[in-house]
Amino acid sequence: MKIRPSTDSDRDAIWNIFHEVVAAGDTYALDPNISREDALAYWFASGTHTYVVEQPTIGIAGTYILRPNQSGGGSHIANAGFMVSAFARGQGLGRAMAEHCLSEARRLGFRAMQFNYVISTNAAAIQLWQDLGFEIVGTLPDAFRHPEKGYVEVYVMYRSLMA
Amino acid sequence: MKIRPSTDSDRDAIWNIFHEVVAAGDTYALDPNISREDALAYWFASGTHTYVVEQPTIGIAGTYILRPNQSGGGSHIANAGFMVSAFARGQGLGRAMAEHCLSEARRLGFRAMQFNYVISTNAAAIQLWQDLGFEIVGTLPDAFRHPEKGYVEVYVMYRSLMA
Repeated sequence: MKIRPSTDSDRDAIWNIFHEVVAAGDTYALDPNISREDALAYWFASGTHTYVVEQPTIGIAGTYILRPNQSGGGSHIANAGFMVSAFARGQGLGRAMAEHCLSEARRLGFRAMQFNYVISTNAAAIQLWQDLGFEIVGTLPDAFRHPEKGYVEVYVMYRSLMA
Repeated sequence: MKIRPSTDSDRDAIWNIFHEVVAAGDTYALDPNISREDALAYWFASGTHTYVVEQPTIGIAGTYILRPNQSGGGSHIANAGFMVSAFARGQGLGRAMAEHCLSEARRLGFRAMQFNYVISTNAAAIQLWQDLGFEIVGTLPDAFRHPEKGYVEVYVMYRSLMA
């Protein structure tokens, strides 16, 4: 697999993955009916670095974004978001993108990385972030309305990049 | 004092307060040099409710915003931001706006309110939020670069509106 910065010609593939992930409505606090235009505006926002993971025969199977979590006095902390196409899950793409992302964040000079909204039912993501050195630094009660499980907790997760 | 939804004619007064607060650079993670256009786009974003507090003789002395903290499955939690003009501090405007805001959030059907980024050096704000029933539910290490104090902690604060 190859992870690289995205180009304009990746937009269709990214939208397909984005739409699939967000329509499921169980991992992101985004409108499941978000338009292609709004989705791509979010994923390619000013100041956001966008990457894709390419598999040899099947093409683009995942995408991630890396950006400052805040502006001004908060811009030294990175934030990131990851999406993997359903057909490509369980193959280590998430982990590969996360490791690439941590490396890119260090290269860009960020001092730490924070995830603002890790839904507590997303066990695979939480396990991966903990494996990669992230800790739960905040717990938001009933912050996500899960399509099947109702109101569930959301975690804020954080790791330093200074070690 | 009177607290009311803002109108287009309040934009100059809001920008004056916004600019003063953000230029100080010690309470918001926003670019201290943000343009008037970007500031007003942020304060009047789609889906954001914007209010002002008016004093009898001096006019608009504070402003606040109320909005969903997330989209989709996270839209039942409110977020808010408050700004008081330097000349009007210590007169209870922050508390009056916060109480108004909690009432508005309940009226709009939000189940809870969350502040994502309360800088630990902002003692007056933390005291006020705790007085109003907010708890610290997350602590972000070194998340804010304070102009005088260097890297300081940031809190995530939360209160239910269901009681």
